[in-house]
Amino acid sequence: MMTMPAKQHLDELAVDECYELLQSRALGRLAFVVDGKPRILPLNYGIHQGSVIFRTGYGDLLDLVHQKDVAFEVDDGDPDTHTGWSVIIHGIAEEIWRPEELEIARALPLRPWAPGDRDHYVRILSTQITGRRIR
Amino acid sequence: MMTMPAKQHLDELAVDECYELLQSRALGRLAFVVDGKPRILPLNYGIHQGSVIFRTGYGDLLDLVHQKDVAFEVDDGDPDTHTGWSVIIHGIAEEIWRPEELEIARALPLRPWAPGDRDHYVRILSTQITGRRIR
Repeated sequence: MMTMPAKQHLDELAVDECYELLQSRALGRLAFVVDGKPRILPLNYGIHQGSVIFRTGYGDLLDLVHQKDVAFEVDDGDPDTHTGWSVIIHGIAEEIWRPEELEIARALPLRPWAPGDRDHYVRILSTQITGRRIR
Repeated sequence: MMTMPAKQHLDELAVDECYELLQSRALGRLAFVVDGKPRILPLNYGIHQGSVIFRTGYGDLLDLVHQKDVAFEVDDGDPDTHTGWSVIIHGIAEEIWRPEELEIARALPLRPWAPGDRDHYVRILSTQITGRRIR
């Protein structure tokens, strides 16, 4: 027999709460546009001064997102109770290249999960951050 | 002290394995394009005859994705061991409207988590399915 969860409520989250939730996770998903079509990639990330930062290799993802619109999503959900939250950032991706900023980015606990050289750091300059919680 | 995980390996997954992993989860993320910009949304889904199917209300998401390119992602990761997998589908989203197909879609255990009317069913006609596992 399937148990029907009680009726859900949807709350919009305050920006502070969105950042707290972002800080609590390490894996998110980046959406971007290539030739007019949507692309999506999971990647691990860190937060520094309110920006999502991730590492990538040169010439692949970097070329596709540098100075372009991106969306970034982090979530957590419980399939049994149908409760969970999600935070979504819209913004522009930009390679970090200033030496003093690179130094800070390199100090983040931001080791890419996938093998391969990923010596470039990208930050998302967010124009909008929104979050929702279903309880 | 941070423990450094052993060196990771990345495996491309076979299509069968991708479908098995898709079947094992209920929450994915849909990426689509609006006015040339990427959008991303978490949603719960079901699988029927090789297609990802989700529910939505009329006039919001449906208008944005019907007959358009979408990307869909499902993943699982362990932040401690830096292992995990992801499956990504590219395809066209399409509302299900034929009565006999709607009947099948309505029989799926596909109850939306978020409150609100979500009486429309959308399937993703996939043109590509790829998966990766980091171990």
